[in-house]
Amino acid sequence: METLSIGQYDLIYNAFSFGFATLAAATLFFWLGISQVKPQYKTALVVTGLVTFIAAYHYWRIGQSWSDAYTLVEGVHVPTEMVFNSAYRYVDWLLTVPLLLVELILVMGLTKSETVKRATSLGLAALLMVALGYPGEVSDSANVRWTFGLLSMIPFLWIVYQLYVGLGTAIENQPENARGLVRAARNVTVASWAFYPVVYFAGAVGLEGATATVVVEVGYTIADLIAKAGFGVLIFLIAMRKSEDVASIGKDKAIPAE
Amino acid sequence: METLSIGQYDLIYNAFSFGFATLAAATLFFWLGISQVKPQYKTALVVTGLVTFIAAYHYWRIGQSWSDAYTLVEGVHVPTEMVFNSAYRYVDWLLTVPLLLVELILVMGLTKSETVKRATSLGLAALLMVALGYPGEVSDSANVRWTFGLLSMIPFLWIVYQLYVGLGTAIENQPENARGLVRAARNVTVASWAFYPVVYFAGAVGLEGATATVVVEVGYTIADLIAKAGFGVLIFLIAMRKSEDVASIGKDKAIPAE
Repeated sequence: METLSIGQYDLIYNAFSFGFATLAAATLFFWLGISQVKPQYKTALVVTGLVTFIAAYHYWRIGQSWSDAYTLVEGVHVPTEMVFNSAYRYVDWLLTVPLLLVELILVMGLTKSETVKRATSLGLAALLMVALGYPGEVSDSANVRWTFGLLSMIPFLWIVYQLYVGLGTAIENQPENARGLVRAARNVTVASWAFYPVVYFAGAVGLEGATATVVVEVGYTIADLIAKAGFGVLIFLIAMRKSEDVASIGKDKAIPAE
Repeated sequence: METLSIGQYDLIYNAFSFGFATLAAATLFFWLGISQVKPQYKTALVVTGLVTFIAAYHYWRIGQSWSDAYTLVEGVHVPTEMVFNSAYRYVDWLLTVPLLLVELILVMGLTKSETVKRATSLGLAALLMVALGYPGEVSDSANVRWTFGLLSMIPFLWIVYQLYVGLGTAIENQPENARGLVRAARNVTVASWAFYPVVYFAGAVGLEGATATVVVEVGYTIADLIAKAGFGVLIFLIAMRKSEDVASIGKDKAIPAE
């Protein structure tokens, strides 16, 4: 850990607090909306709120750990013995990243067997992706960081392939009023997830010291907010749109929501 | 208590935090699902969430107690005067382990008298099993640990017998779409509970010092998560499946929107 200026320390501290507030508010928004969607989309909103709930908990803990990890000495923040616990991020991702893919699958309204199959395979790939990243994150060696970072890219690329090719037809078969939103949710997943490796490899290309700490902590926070709260709003909108659709179709055309 | 390396201390600390986050999220997941199941299965989900709620509370306390129990001195964690309170686990189990069996009985949808009879006898056996384990857990003597550990196995084996033989017919008579899941829930109960004696006896077969602490704390945490949150997801799925079944039987056989 390195010494930080007051501005650097505060920027990160405030980013964590902003992260907690946004994620906690998003959780309540998603759960308070459950009664407004059709039964088959309720679980999608439950899971969407679970992801932001789990992340809000971890941002609360991360903020506390950050406070404990520095002390102000003669106008600069110097590290204390209580090392900042970056494992909170990985513990969070182990739980939330698979659930993010489950949200998307649930709101697509596939058949039951297809839902189980897709959610399981994508969820396990996401778990593998996060688990492979951790040894690199905590290592001081750029080589180890590169090795695990690249290994972690294999399940990531498989997930991208599945989202564009494996689920391509299912996405194009979404009801017209929701199709654009489902495509957007898929694209936001890939785009926001692609941001994590950029932050991750920032530590492997020689960016170090206080600037690296700011880039990593603020960067991960922004990525988390887009991937969880922003993505969740899309899932919420899809569930609302498809609930309207079912209601109107219920009258004349008998095509079910899928 | 023994001195722990930073890695050992952190692994256990992070396992406790992971345990809290998972159990708290699971609680909300079960309770938010209550409105989605038929009235006769709502209590099963209420109880399922109670178990993870009680466990989440104890993991929060366990995490605090863990922080208080060690202090960082020259790069290693040395015990403080505040001894880690392992009684939290037993207090938790006294409440949650009988309730886990109640969940399973409730979701099976037996007759009222059968439900009361089975839930009472299995619940009391579970209580006895936990109470008999405690004197061995806190003893430094391997003999005492073996004695109470083996005594505790008697109610455990009776429970296993009841789950496979006493409830065997009731499980085979479950509706077809839920039968496999009920069998799985029964098997997960026995398999995850069988993990506790393994951890318990690790302290009686000479495994000691820092490694034993890691095995015991991380082992119990994994077992708790499978036995409570993982098992709870199965109970949730059974309640959802059986609720659909009732709904479709209500009409003609049109399989509802998947």
